[in-house]
Amino acid sequence: MGLQKFILDKLARFFQIRNLLLRQALAECLGTLILVMFGCGAVAQSVLSGGTHGRFLSVNFAFGFAAMLGILICGQVSGGHLNPAVTFSLCLLGRERWRKFPMYFLFQTIGAFFGASIIFAMYYDALWDFPGCFNLTDDSSTAGIFATYPGNHLSIVNGFFDQIIGTAALIVCILAIVDPYNNPIPQGLEAFTVGFVVLVIGQSMGFNSGYAVNPARDLGPRLFSAIAGWGTAVFTFKDGWFLVPIFAPFIGAIIGTMIYQLMVGFHVEGEVRDREENKNKEENLQLNINSNPKSNYNDKEANC
Amino acid sequence: MGLQKFILDKLARFFQIRNLLLRQALAECLGTLILVMFGCGAVAQSVLSGGTHGRFLSVNFAFGFAAMLGILICGQVSGGHLNPAVTFSLCLLGRERWRKFPMYFLFQTIGAFFGASIIFAMYYDALWDFPGCFNLTDDSSTAGIFATYPGNHLSIVNGFFDQIIGTAALIVCILAIVDPYNNPIPQGLEAFTVGFVVLVIGQSMGFNSGYAVNPARDLGPRLFSAIAGWGTAVFTFKDGWFLVPIFAPFIGAIIGTMIYQLMVGFHVEGEVRDREENKNKEENLQLNINSNPKSNYNDKEANC
Amino acid sequence: MGLQKFILDKLARFFQIRNLLLRQALAECLGTLILVMFGCGAVAQSVLSGGTHGRFLSVNFAFGFAAMLGILICGQVSGGHLNPAVTFSLCLLGRERWRKFPMYFLFQTIGAFFGASIIFAMYYDALWDFPGCFNLTDDSSTAGIFATYPGNHLSIVNGFFDQIIGTAALIVCILAIVDPYNNPIPQGLEAFTVGFVVLVIGQSMGFNSGYAVNPARDLGPRLFSAIAGWGTAVFTFKDGWFLVPIFAPFIGAIIGTMIYQLMVGFHVEGEVRDREENKNKEENLQLNINSNPKSNYNDKEANC
Amino acid sequence: MGLQKFILDKLARFFQIRNLLLRQALAECLGTLILVMFGCGAVAQSVLSGGTHGRFLSVNFAFGFAAMLGILICGQVSGGHLNPAVTFSLCLLGRERWRKFPMYFLFQTIGAFFGASIIFAMYYDALWDFPGCFNLTDDSSTAGIFATYPGNHLSIVNGFFDQIIGTAALIVCILAIVDPYNNPIPQGLEAFTVGFVVLVIGQSMGFNSGYAVNPARDLGPRLFSAIAGWGTAVFTFKDGWFLVPIFAPFIGAIIGTMIYQLMVGFHVEGEVRDREENKNKEENLQLNINSNPKSNYNDKEANC
Repeated sequence: MGLQKFILDKLARFFQIRNLLLRQALAECLGTLILVMFGCGAVAQSVLSGGTHGRFLSVNFAFGFAAMLGILICGQVSGGHLNPAVTFSLCLLGRERWRKFPMYFLFQTIGAFFGASIIFAMYYDALWDFPGCFNLTDDSSTAGIFATYPGNHLSIVNGFFDQIIGTAALIVCILAIVDPYNNPIPQGLEAFTVGFVVLVIGQSMGFNSGYAVNPARDLGPRLFSAIAGWGTAVFTFKDGWFLVPIFAPFIGAIIGTMIYQLMVGFHVEGEVRDREENKNKEENLQLNINSNPKSNYNDKEANC
Repeated sequence: MGLQKFILDKLARFFQIRNLLLRQALAECLGTLILVMFGCGAVAQSVLSGGTHGRFLSVNFAFGFAAMLGILICGQVSGGHLNPAVTFSLCLLGRERWRKFPMYFLFQTIGAFFGASIIFAMYYDALWDFPGCFNLTDDSSTAGIFATYPGNHLSIVNGFFDQIIGTAALIVCILAIVDPYNNPIPQGLEAFTVGFVVLVIGQSMGFNSGYAVNPARDLGPRLFSAIAGWGTAVFTFKDGWFLVPIFAPFIGAIIGTMIYQLMVGFHVEGEVRDREENKNKEENLQLNINSNPKSNYNDKEANC
Repeated sequence: MGLQKFILDKLARFFQIRNLLLRQALAECLGTLILVMFGCGAVAQSVLSGGTHGRFLSVNFAFGFAAMLGILICGQVSGGHLNPAVTFSLCLLGRERWRKFPMYFLFQTIGAFFGASIIFAMYYDALWDFPGCFNLTDDSSTAGIFATYPGNHLSIVNGFFDQIIGTAALIVCILAIVDPYNNPIPQGLEAFTVGFVVLVIGQSMGFNSGYAVNPARDLGPRLFSAIAGWGTAVFTFKDGWFLVPIFAPFIGAIIGTMIYQLMVGFHVEGEVRDREENKNKEENLQLNINSNPKSNYNDKEANC
Repeated sequence: MGLQKFILDKLARFFQIRNLLLRQALAECLGTLILVMFGCGAVAQSVLSGGTHGRFLSVNFAFGFAAMLGILICGQVSGGHLNPAVTFSLCLLGRERWRKFPMYFLFQTIGAFFGASIIFAMYYDALWDFPGCFNLTDDSSTAGIFATYPGNHLSIVNGFFDQIIGTAALIVCILAIVDPYNNPIPQGLEAFTVGFVVLVIGQSMGFNSGYAVNPARDLGPRLFSAIAGWGTAVFTFKDGWFLVPIFAPFIGAIIGTMIYQLMVGFHVEGEVRDREENKNKEENLQLNINSNPKSNYNDKEANC
């Protein structure tokens, strides 16, 4: 046991990364890998088995629980965004620094890329066995395992709007869950709740184009599928549909942030601020009595 | 970062609403919007996809988790009723003031209206692509996406009774969950539990007419569907069926409240009261010794 | 508001029951009513809709969540057994008094009876509309909505064994969940966990005869269905099958209790006892020094 | 009551096992029995009912909740591994002693063997009633109720890789859940979260060969099915497929441990170590002042 402890300690010290941003980016990478591996894996299982080993409901559950597990894995280190649109929204509200945004976006996309590659390797035999493999356009399409493609009924305008609404709904729910002034759920259950959000979005907003609502989750696997054999058609399909799940979610994030803040966020935050300012005033009146009247106020703010 | 903080602070102060009732009504509005958006979205996905992207089970899950998320979003501000029948029941028991009831009813209905409109916009293309869109009476009806309609087997009397039973079951469970003398679940898990209540009601009481059990959830989307193209037929269908999910839930709320209070509520409440009165008596005996014997008793009551 | 408070207080005092056993029995009655109402309601919805509004999976979910809600409603008052076999097992272990057993059995059966009657009333129109209603023996049987009937492949011996295994599995899991020496889950989550137990039993042990594993849940609705129109055939079917789900669960409870206690229970309990006896010995050695050495020990025991 | 208490106490003392390792092995045995009984029971129900009483989704749910319940039952005593690959991974990280590994492996396999035998007994009539019972190779195979068999599309190499990926994914998630430096979830919810991991693995990685990802869960029931009537074909099928779910999971465990430690584990552990060493240094500076400066540090380490 002594030798094992020694080796483990050596390894731990050798591989330890001390740069916080890099560590956070790595954690996001692993979290998004888990999200895409389980989520796209469920799509693969459903498509390749022809429905016997999964249907749309099991894809919804898989993406929900995959998001939950991805957040659990990296949440304590990086916050568990797994989604550039979530990072963007938190940056907008000043809760994360803007310089995190490109780093997170990059590593989330890398994680999604590798998640897709694991699923490709896992179902390699099943894919070659599937009639019409590496097919993109017709009904037996397998490209949908990795990235999202619009249904036949969907125009590009409605599709853009679809991604905006989906992301806005996601952001409203996530902001409510992590709002420090609202705190509706016990500490530690955020990941479970976000998982239910992703689940319910899939059940109610998944018919149009498969609820990407996440630029990294869509771009990473799409890049992989282009390399793995589906070719550049994954980008040219329907006049560049691939741009929709990259740009629309950010607009959705802005709208979702606005809706939540206007209808709930600003008011609960304001209530806390009012209470603190009142307290502060009273304390200022006692300024002559107490020696450092502001210390209490500052402590409070730090805790929030 | 300084500028962003400044602008955010400005915005927060500008949009902050200090009227408590209005803030609560806005929160209920957003919560009910979320409930209807996800719930009716799942119905839309199930109907418009012809069952490939959802079935009745996924509608049940969606309504359950939608209720959960709606409550999480507004629960800390407004209590998270999302349902005039719940507000009514809590008013009956004196836990909410009666003047809240019309305000909540109005804003819940408005929220449901906008939730339905978001789903309409999202599935606009899919709706036009659907054979027999804007159809009300036959099997391929799309009006059921928004409001509830009775099955062919259902008489109006049985339908009225159906809504009464469904709402009574909902109210019994909710009263047990939020009863301050019973408190069966850890703080913060109420929303999850109510979500399971809505889920199970859908699985066992949804066949007759689609378990509205909520006047706002039914009236708001019905109004929207009348405007959006289904016309006044949504009100005249089956001799004014639309009145059933408006009025029956309130009767169900009264019956549910009575059942819970008679079989559990009064007894647990009475036990606490008995204990306090005994304590109080003992304290009164010590009246000559302590200076303010009642303060302890009052503090207790305030906490409950 | 003053008048309402006054009336509510009057009502609360008038209807308050002070007899503990009666209050507990009433709570069990309401809890079992909820269990059967939601559970059998899901069977009714699944059978009467011909599978469009529910399948066996949704019945499993409904019974699981119904058990969860039933326990939540009455758990703080009566322990939330909802099942005479559970009461029996806890009596065996000396955690409940034996005189509770007949009272609980009676009121659980009454609750199940009324739960079935509510579902009958709710789906009255749907039942008359169903081809072959009040039918017992063939495939389109509606009697299975209320009580359980064995599949065609099942012999009475295998059926008896099926109920024993099912109940033993239930009891092993429940004893682990409520074991005061094992306490694997946070306070207040027992009901959720028992709900999952019921769910998983339905998914893995429901094919033979529909997993009654509960004498009250089966007998109450069977009595009701005999009265409501299915007649005495519900008792005479397959040479008195109805006796199996009444007696087998108690044998299963004995076996389940033995298995859990022999493989886990006695050892964790013994470990605590050993620790306490060691402590006690040490304290006895200090007898001459401390004035009341046993008080600490007794406090510990009371807490367990 | 006095006599019952006396007898219970006698029994408890007579059957109490004081050897810790044996007690832990017994608990693992019961936990794995529960896992296999509910999990394989769901497969049996799904196969024997021809899909009416369960499909692949319900098998996924059953295995997930079965894992959850198995862990709840034995977690406080033995850690609730239920899987030699998990034991192996924790031994690798020095969190469990290596001598536990063979003992746990043996008793987990025994538990799985008995779990399978219970399901065999329960569905004995249904099995004989099933067309082509005791069949191994064609589509109506019943051997898949107990052990896992590869799909027709799967080569042995891809199958080996499939088990490695599945187990690695399981291990990454479990290590994140139980990491003492990461602790993402509230105390006591580990079992629920691991249940969701098993559920999502089934939904996304179950198509190739049925996600054994557990040598004991596969070997025990396979042994039983060989004895119970399927014969030695269960071992000779596809050139010794049965070796894949025995050996591949251990390789998967190594890879999963490496991935988690390199991407998250070492860094969070290192951060805590850095903080402690800094504190230690500061305390060493105060060495002349305090008498035992290291006690604080040691206490911290013990708590972690």
